[in-house]
Order: sequence, then C-alpha cells, then structure tokens
Amino acid sequence: MSVTAPENVRRVACVGTGVIGGGWTAHFLARGYDVTAWDPASDAGERVRRIVASAWPALEQLGLADGASPDRLTITATLADAVADAQFVQESAPEELTLKRELLADLDAATADDVVIASSTSGYPMTDMQTHAARPQRLVVGHPFNPPYLIPLVEVVGGELTDRWAVEWASAFYMAVGKSVITMDREVPGFIANRLQEALWREALHMVAEGEATVADIDASITEGPGLRWAFMGPCLTFALAGGEGGMAHMLDQFGPSLTLPLTRLEAPELDDALRAAMIDGCADAAGDRHYAQLVAERDQGVIDVLRATGRLPQPRKA
Amino acid sequence: MSVTAPENVRRVACVGTGVIGGGWTAHFLARGYDVTAWDPASDAGERVRRIVASAWPALEQLGLADGASPDRLTITATLADAVADAQFVQESAPEELTLKRELLADLDAATADDVVIASSTSGYPMTDMQTHAARPQRLVVGHPFNPPYLIPLVEVVGGELTDRWAVEWASAFYMAVGKSVITMDREVPGFIANRLQEALWREALHMVAEGEATVADIDASITEGPGLRWAFMGPCLTFALAGGEGGMAHMLDQFGPSLTLPLTRLEAPELDDALRAAMIDGCADAAGDRHYAQLVAERDQGVIDVLRATGRLPQPRKA
Repeated sequence: MSVTAPENVRRVACVGTGVIGGGWTAHFLARGYDVTAWDPASDAGERVRRIVASAWPALEQLGLADGASPDRLTITATLADAVADAQFVQESAPEELTLKRELLADLDAATADDVVIASSTSGYPMTDMQTHAARPQRLVVGHPFNPPYLIPLVEVVGGELTDRWAVEWASAFYMAVGKSVITMDREVPGFIANRLQEALWREALHMVAEGEATVADIDASITEGPGLRWAFMGPCLTFALAGGEGGMAHMLDQFGPSLTLPLTRLEAPELDDALRAAMIDGCADAAGDRHYAQLVAERDQGVIDVLRATGRLPQPRKA
Repeated sequence: MSVTAPENVRRVACVGTGVIGGGWTAHFLARGYDVTAWDPASDAGERVRRIVASAWPALEQLGLADGASPDRLTITATLADAVADAQFVQESAPEELTLKRELLADLDAATADDVVIASSTSGYPMTDMQTHAARPQRLVVGHPFNPPYLIPLVEVVGGELTDRWAVEWASAFYMAVGKSVITMDREVPGFIANRLQEALWREALHMVAEGEATVADIDASITEGPGLRWAFMGPCLTFALAGGEGGMAHMLDQFGPSLTLPLTRLEAPELDDALRAAMIDGCADAAGDRHYAQLVAERDQGVIDVLRATGRLPQPRKA
C-alpha cells in the first residue's frame, strides 16, 4: 500500500451530486483539482454543472487556485468510472443508512485500499455505515457544512474499524484544500456542530409546533441576535463575556441555577465541579493573554464589521 | 394617566448596572437620552462609567445621535432618585426570581403608573415576576442581547397582568431607539432567541461533560460552521437552502427521519403535517419572490462578506 500524500492529490471523486456533493465538486474544482462525479439521477450531470456555475462567481471572488476550471469536471456514467483513478473519494448520498452502507461497500470494492473514502453524512457514525465494506479501515466521516465551497468547517472522525492513518490523512487533506478541520477522537451521532445546530433546530420546531413563534420570528431572533456574534466568536466565549470581568466563572455562578429552568425542552446536565472547571479553563485557554477589555473591544469590532458587511450599517465615513 | 409617546421620551432610568444594565446605559446615552442609573453595588458608578467608556468608540463608529454624550449619565444614590423623573425604566438586576419580584415592586411604587418598566430578564416570564407589584399592568419583559448597545434584538412580551398598551408602547419605544423588536403574544420561558441559544448551550455543556468536545471545539464548530451563516440568514432559511431547489419541503422529507436519531439530548417534536406545512410556508414567506438561485447567491455573498469582515479572507483586489 502506497498512500498518496494529502498534498499530492490531484484527482478526487464526488459520489452523489445533490446540494452537498455538488458543492464539494465546486470546491475541489476551485482548488485546482480534477474532479470526477457520479450520481444515479438521470439529470445529475446537468444539475451538478448548474451548481458549479452558480458557485463560480463566489469562488472567483475568493481566489481560484492556478489552473482551476469548471472544465476539469468529468461526469461519469458509472460509479466505478468515477472512482477508478481517484486519489480521494467524497461520498454525499442521501441520508439513509441502508443506502450509505451499500454505497460505501460499493466504493470500497471499486477503489484501491490506500484511497481514503469520506462520507458527508450529517449524523451517522461511521461505525454504523462501514458494516458492509470489505476494507473499512480507510472509511471516515468528513462532514461539511452547506455550502461546502464557502463554509470552512469539516468534522473528521473514524469508525471502530477505521485505521488511525485514514483519519489523520483525511484531516491533512481537508486542510490542504483550505478547510477548517475538527478531528474528533470519538464518535458521537451528529458530531459537534450538527449536535449544537440540531439542538437549536429541534427547539425551533417545537416552538413552531406549539405556536410560540413563527419561522420569521425564529430566523430574525438569530440574525438580529446571537447569530451576529457567532460568526466570529463561539457560544462559550460569548457567554464568558456575558459574565463581565468575572468571565465564565461568574457567568456559570449567575446563570447556573437557570439550567434547571424549562428554558428549552432539552434537559441540562448537572453543573458539577468538573464541568464548571472544564468550561472555565476552556474559556481561559480561548482568551489566552487577552484580558476582558480587549475581548470586549474585539467582539464589538466584530459585530460592527459583520453588521456593516451584511448591509445593516452605513459604510464608514471617509476621513 | 397621560403616557409619554415613545418617540418623545428624553429620560430613561437603568436599574442594575452590571454587564447588561451598563450596556443598556451606553446604548441610551449614544442615542441621545438623559440616563439615570442606580445599582446597589458600592463601585457601581465607577463600573458603569467604565462600561460606557469601553463601548463609546464602537458607538461613535455606529454614529451617535445629536447631542449624545457620556456626560448625560447621572448615577444616583437611591433607586427612587434614579426613576423619579424617568419616562422609561430598564431593569437589569441579577437573574434571581425573588430579587426581581421585590425590585419590580419597588420600581412600581417609585414611578407614576404611566411609565413602562421593562425587565432585561433572560428567562423569567413576567407573570412570575410581577406578582408583588401594586400596578403590574405596565411591567413588560424587554430582553436584550449582550452587548445591548450593538446587538439589535429585543424580545418584548407582557405577563398575565400586563396591559396590551404597555407591550405595544415598549415595542414602539425600542424601535425608536434603534432596536430590532420581536413582540411575542404569549409567554414562553426563555422567549425565542434564548430558548434556541439555550438549547445549543445545554447540548454544548453535555458534550463537554461527556468529554465529547472541548470548549475550543465547540466554539470553532460554530464560528467556522453554522455561525457564519446565522449572522445574516436564520436557521430556517439556511436549512431550506440545504434542501436545494426543493427547499424546506425537500429538506424536511430528507432529514425528517433523522429527527428520531439521538443527534442531541433534546427530544424532537413529531413532524406531522401541520408542523411540516408551517415550516414550509414560513420559509416561502421569508423567501418572498426570491427564487432558489437568488437566495443561494445572496447567501454566498453574505458568507464571503462576513468572512472578509472578520479577517478570514484577503481584501478584494483593486480593479
């Protein structure tokens, strides 16, 4: 087995070319790769070319890699043709476990065992998906966010039968193609961001179901509220700032009791000493040598910049 | 009773001047109001002036109202002095129900009954807080987001004993001072944004407690992922886009089954026909006459703008 180094990959295959697979295709093309793509839908070729064409102006704005071109996309008639010469495979089939299991087994059979195959699944642990593959050791989750050609995050995690090298290879490869990578060392259904996003989403569905809020209320409550901060400062550090100069410790002491309130349908964990310490230490690490006043100034500038960038503030006056 | 029209208010009182109350103080000063402030802490005056001074550069960037000045802040020795001439009172005391009940009763006793008193509470329904007040009809929740001088959202809702005019007056007043207002017609603990935020936060605490993710992972998973979109497009409409040209209907049909997966510790509601229709109709309303391709282009431009505004992309090349 002679694994291609992540930075030497030139040809990738995208299997499944809906919104996510098509978005991956656009991303890899913009980064200068040859991309082969396959999807069982009869109009797959037309659809993926439309996604790429729609994304290209944004990708040009971001700056294309040398030689990047939509013309380096090849739509193949069969799955085997798509992956035959690929040095990496990104699977983005619909979110059905049986389908994923069979497709990953087919991909496994059609590729050399030194090729890493990543699934875009938004929730299934690889352990549950790699059951039918003969050589499951190179199967990983590489979970992107829509649109994959713009949102940096990819969550990488293996299953019980995945070799460590494949997880490390995938993380290095995604970093080489310009993604922000979180490598997880254990499987959790939904990974990290999707669990957080899904918790918010389920609560939103409850509120609509109960008539407590409309879709418009929910969207406005985020874009006019916490969402403005989350574009550049995560929920932990923003909550630490809500604790004032006392930081996360003060925030937990002040709002800890409200974890017992029915503020969502999600039951909260017990805020014991270990969890309290983990939250406080994590925020201290995130802050580094930035004191409260500096973090506040950075956050304020961030909110202003985001408000201005999204057209909600006038441009600054020229001096 | 002769209520001051919301747009004619000139003097507001901020009671409780921690991070939130101090932030409100800065906001009202920047919008050109006379502000009286009171807090029982011995260093309250110094602290609120420090918050205002720290916020002022950001507020100057946003553009101050004519005549706005930090000098128009008066720190009073007593609660009664703070509210005596105020045409609006913003209460931002610590999140303790007993304290809020007593403080709101004191504020009620110290003000004319045509003055609206709003609580910054992040979770308590006004019905639970207005129990001790003699004239509870003008007590409302006006829930801001940190920092109140930058994040536009305020959620307004009354309690069972609140008159409708007070809710409408508060909504109009907050709009007059430049906030984005969501007026709720029923009480839900946590209101809207905080329920959504709290669901995410509780799941984050679970993940840290279980060792599934670090504080750094959680923050990065949002700022590099969904948070980039939420600054300008809410969770419903972004999920509708994940459904491709099929929109929210396709998204719900594709991901509906995953509501039964243990993707968070929050139990999901049943996706029945009524909920499905409410989500789809709400997203159709949000999209208006913008078709999928236009929404995708807007989202892409938004992500690029936010990435650039928050220093994660180079400035565009000059032509």
